[in-house]
Amino acid sequence: MLYTLDLFATVVFAITGALAASRKEMDILGFLWLGAAAGVGGGTLRDLILDQPVFWTVSPAALIASLVAAALMHFIAPIFQSRIKVIIWLDAFGMAFAAIAGTVKCIGLDTSGLVAVVLGVFTASAGGITRDLLAQEPSIILKRDIYVTAAATGATTVVLLHAFGLSLEVSSAIGFAVAIVLRGAAIAFGWTLPVFKSRPAR
Amino acid sequence: MLYTLDLFATVVFAITGALAASRKEMDILGFLWLGAAAGVGGGTLRDLILDQPVFWTVSPAALIASLVAAALMHFIAPIFQSRIKVIIWLDAFGMAFAAIAGTVKCIGLDTSGLVAVVLGVFTASAGGITRDLLAQEPSIILKRDIYVTAAATGATTVVLLHAFGLSLEVSSAIGFAVAIVLRGAAIAFGWTLPVFKSRPAR
Amino acid sequence: MLYTLDLFATVVFAITGALAASRKEMDILGFLWLGAAAGVGGGTLRDLILDQPVFWTVSPAALIASLVAAALMHFIAPIFQSRIKVIIWLDAFGMAFAAIAGTVKCIGLDTSGLVAVVLGVFTASAGGITRDLLAQEPSIILKRDIYVTAAATGATTVVLLHAFGLSLEVSSAIGFAVAIVLRGAAIAFGWTLPVFKSRPAR
Repeated sequence: MLYTLDLFATVVFAITGALAASRKEMDILGFLWLGAAAGVGGGTLRDLILDQPVFWTVSPAALIASLVAAALMHFIAPIFQSRIKVIIWLDAFGMAFAAIAGTVKCIGLDTSGLVAVVLGVFTASAGGITRDLLAQEPSIILKRDIYVTAAATGATTVVLLHAFGLSLEVSSAIGFAVAIVLRGAAIAFGWTLPVFKSRPAR
Repeated sequence: MLYTLDLFATVVFAITGALAASRKEMDILGFLWLGAAAGVGGGTLRDLILDQPVFWTVSPAALIASLVAAALMHFIAPIFQSRIKVIIWLDAFGMAFAAIAGTVKCIGLDTSGLVAVVLGVFTASAGGITRDLLAQEPSIILKRDIYVTAAATGATTVVLLHAFGLSLEVSSAIGFAVAIVLRGAAIAFGWTLPVFKSRPAR
Repeated sequence: MLYTLDLFATVVFAITGALAASRKEMDILGFLWLGAAAGVGGGTLRDLILDQPVFWTVSPAALIASLVAAALMHFIAPIFQSRIKVIIWLDAFGMAFAAIAGTVKCIGLDTSGLVAVVLGVFTASAGGITRDLLAQEPSIILKRDIYVTAAATGATTVVLLHAFGLSLEVSSAIGFAVAIVLRGAAIAFGWTLPVFKSRPAR
């Protein structure tokens, strides 16, 4: 099941990459590049930092799924463009799962809890950040709609619950729920964190 | 010969990096930074993903060549700026060779064919993308002139021919020819792929 | 002492990341992301290229320091915004130390002198470049105020003095002094390198 969810997150991220390519009116290779970057970019950077084999060089299923999803989008993107709400919600699930999957991978490697949370957040956000950099669009970390925050809260929940003795499965499920509820509430109710305000000139 | 061609690709990419630095009117350290990033950036990321020693930490020739080429350009860039056609063609050869070299390196490491193609494309384009990001210019993947496409077609040709039993040398030579002809035709005749068009508002 | 100075460099870089976040009016997670990217980004990329364990996955002190500094800045950034001169000078010390620390790490791993200089410069500048990319601000390598140059000169000094037989400690101290004096002079007197000028149209 973990495996299916991981593929799901990859495909959703690849679709968001392809949609960015569609906004920039790229050709199909642009779709593939941005789809793959968004789909597997976060996990790639996570594996490099953890000094693990990059996951899609071992088992290419996620890479294939990213490329197929991006190629399909080249032809059917208009359907999704008019269903942007659907994408935002799918992306919320992708973010939540990527955060938990990254954190669980770290726990399995016995990293410290801090590293597990940081790399969970990194897995969930680095693909999107790479996508935004490549498409030269405003980065998700410049937005203020509780995206990275939800990933961080979910990842922290997993680490804490597991440290208190809950099984990894139960910790993950609760952490996932926390991330998705927080992100979902932000989407539904427009929640944001207070932002830093530059001092007005006096 | 492979080695000479590899150095050639590196130097050509370094020159494109230095030309980007010249357009931004950088100082010589900016030329060196962008030249090195464009020259060895793609191969560096490829080696990281393949979990191989980064090539220029083992044998610094390519790094030295990048830096020397970039430093030279600081003084002679105007000569090249008025010969932009020359650079575009040199860059086409650099792209074609980098794509084939990346693919051949993967085949030598027994990766799957898909990974070999993806990392061939990556070797050919990641240096240029890094250069464009650092110089804050529009990225090559945002352009539509069959650049990444030519790299992907050449890399795919190598993998397929080698899988059908041709020697790596012959496969590489044919793959290189395919990439350079496709890219050359795009330059000469202005070929592009059909791009995704956003649906007009109704 | 080396350890303390390393932490100092990290914290200073993290503060510059958080200040970039404050200019963009991000929320606290944006501060943490940019603070961590600027604080540990350069060293992370250096360790990846050197095929060493990423330093903060082994000992998280620098990561913790980055995050704490960035979080603090979310509340007290205005104090620093009005003391921009202080930050520029702290950043000069951070740059100088990061350059020397990166170079010394390479010498300890018996890399060639060129690689030691290049990765010293990389350690000193990659965190700032990542910060500028993520915050979508003009990159430090696009500026012309002898920043990368000072890092390169200091790193080269260390490598040369050590090659001539001085101890690593003495070489490092002199290299550090060279970097900080050069950068300090650039700040104090507005020194720049001659920049490449595009030829005027005739």
